[in-house]
Amino acid sequence: MHRLALSAVLVLAALSAAADPLPSWKDGPAKQAITGFVTDVTKAGGKDFVPPAQRIAVFDNDGTLWIEQPMYTQLAFVLDRLKVLAPAHPEWTEQQPFKAALEGDLATLGAAGSEGLLQLVIATHSGMTSAEFETIALDWIGAARHPRFQQPYTQLIYQPMLELLEYLRGNGFKTFIVSGGGADFMRPWSETVYGIPPEQVIGSQIAQRFEVRDGVPVIVREPEVAFIDDQAGKPVGIQRHIGRRPILAFGNSDGDIQMLQWTTGAPGPSLGLILHHTDAEREYAYDRESHFGRLDKALALAPENGWVLVSMKDAWSHLFPPTQGSQPDE
Amino acid sequence: MHRLALSAVLVLAALSAAADPLPSWKDGPAKQAITGFVTDVTKAGGKDFVPPAQRIAVFDNDGTLWIEQPMYTQLAFVLDRLKVLAPAHPEWTEQQPFKAALEGDLATLGAAGSEGLLQLVIATHSGMTSAEFETIALDWIGAARHPRFQQPYTQLIYQPMLELLEYLRGNGFKTFIVSGGGADFMRPWSETVYGIPPEQVIGSQIAQRFEVRDGVPVIVREPEVAFIDDQAGKPVGIQRHIGRRPILAFGNSDGDIQMLQWTTGAPGPSLGLILHHTDAEREYAYDRESHFGRLDKALALAPENGWVLVSMKDAWSHLFPPTQGSQPDE
Repeated sequence: MHRLALSAVLVLAALSAAADPLPSWKDGPAKQAITGFVTDVTKAGGKDFVPPAQRIAVFDNDGTLWIEQPMYTQLAFVLDRLKVLAPAHPEWTEQQPFKAALEGDLATLGAAGSEGLLQLVIATHSGMTSAEFETIALDWIGAARHPRFQQPYTQLIYQPMLELLEYLRGNGFKTFIVSGGGADFMRPWSETVYGIPPEQVIGSQIAQRFEVRDGVPVIVREPEVAFIDDQAGKPVGIQRHIGRRPILAFGNSDGDIQMLQWTTGAPGPSLGLILHHTDAEREYAYDRESHFGRLDKALALAPENGWVLVSMKDAWSHLFPPTQGSQPDE
Repeated sequence: MHRLALSAVLVLAALSAAADPLPSWKDGPAKQAITGFVTDVTKAGGKDFVPPAQRIAVFDNDGTLWIEQPMYTQLAFVLDRLKVLAPAHPEWTEQQPFKAALEGDLATLGAAGSEGLLQLVIATHSGMTSAEFETIALDWIGAARHPRFQQPYTQLIYQPMLELLEYLRGNGFKTFIVSGGGADFMRPWSETVYGIPPEQVIGSQIAQRFEVRDGVPVIVREPEVAFIDDQAGKPVGIQRHIGRRPILAFGNSDGDIQMLQWTTGAPGPSLGLILHHTDAEREYAYDRESHFGRLDKALALAPENGWVLVSMKDAWSHLFPPTQGSQPDE
């Protein structure tokens, strides 16, 4: 694209953003709930005004900011990583759940449950320094492709959510990720991809240890889980990390129920939102029966708690951000 | 003070700040090290330029940002709190270390060591909700007075450090507290006092649990230590919370050694600073022999690591911020 043409596009984009901060959101109840809430809490002197310091917004990651089907992205990372490490672990060819993982036997893997999954996570996420793990995660995320869309996972993020994050930040909100996934898996790219710096990424963590190794200070990742930031762990993670209660929470699964309860269960203005994956054509349609991102109890709890259901199919005009290079370069 | 006079003072303060961002720092090697470092890392195109997102500065709290003698402020809180709780715990009159704490028997308390201290912390910091603890901490910090200075502890903070925090933030740094003290003890007032929001306060933490109690979501503080943010715990706390390595660290005791090592032990520009309490007249003079804030090994490590020693007596022209109301109101 010529520089002039690029400038024109950027100007048009800026003008359009001024006109509508959420251009990929269709007019409807979800968009109205969001813009109404932001207008209310930012209106100086209004009855629902919230000072900027207290405008904390928390977002689940898997299935809320980016794709989580056909499996959590971090699980795809784990399975790839196990293959890399397998030659040094001949015992894995006989030992479950490693055998199943290496053979791609998802049924056996599923039967191993979260206990089994944790073993795989520990085997692939510990034993190296923090700097080494950052390189491993960055290399993988740069090279891996989603099996259906054949795109990098960092391209399979939701454009409407990028707009929402930006819109909130433009209105004095501080945006945080609160994910069941590993904090250190997301942090190497969260700022580039979402505009969320690593210190605003809350997630599950394994134990870490500081040591000076041959005169060089390192942090070593230990084979032990330190914190699981899921379900009732989410409000605890928020309290540990942020120390104040969010006023906006956006999730998509039963793992987000407690985060939504904590955010909206206090006096004062708050907004809870749930993304409902209803779009088999552009992405996936799933809820009560899904292994990943199951949305069951939260669906039932939404009406009585005033949580806004966002149907992907109905609420969003665009899904993924425009692919770089997909437009002709002229 | 008349409004006009106040405006004049503010204008003068602003002018003076423009001329010298660190007016309470005497000209000398410490001030030069700081301003030289900040100039280098903010100089676009310079060889030591650091992008704003990576300008992370970490500060110990006790003895670095505020007073820590004759005992850690949080220990004074613990001792006061035990007296409030004692009527409901008749067993404490016979049980150590509670008996010693209630009788002010600091020798026995000292002999009980950190294990004993931890028992007292747990007894006073758990069993309530997060909101209840916030109120308890805020009420105490508002009412308590330092035994020597007869001032609120939040007044016994160091004016030169307030100027440094502000100077760093004005140069694109993000400022964090990294304290061995309890995060939730500092967070209720850290923003008002230091301009550091709760989400940038890293400290020791006890376990917490989310529950919905009679329909109301609460976070309950549990009688169990979740994390000790001291010594080798400091770089781990930094990594868990921030996920990137600071480029400036400021401490004052041996508990800060590992944080200083982690900050300055990497290639690229970094600055480590140690406040040395050398001012018995205006505050206290202590180092190798002190029970609180012992500075021994760090003194020996400073030269070889290039950590800058800041002698309170020599480097600072003013110590505490001007007392509100100490100037005539006209």
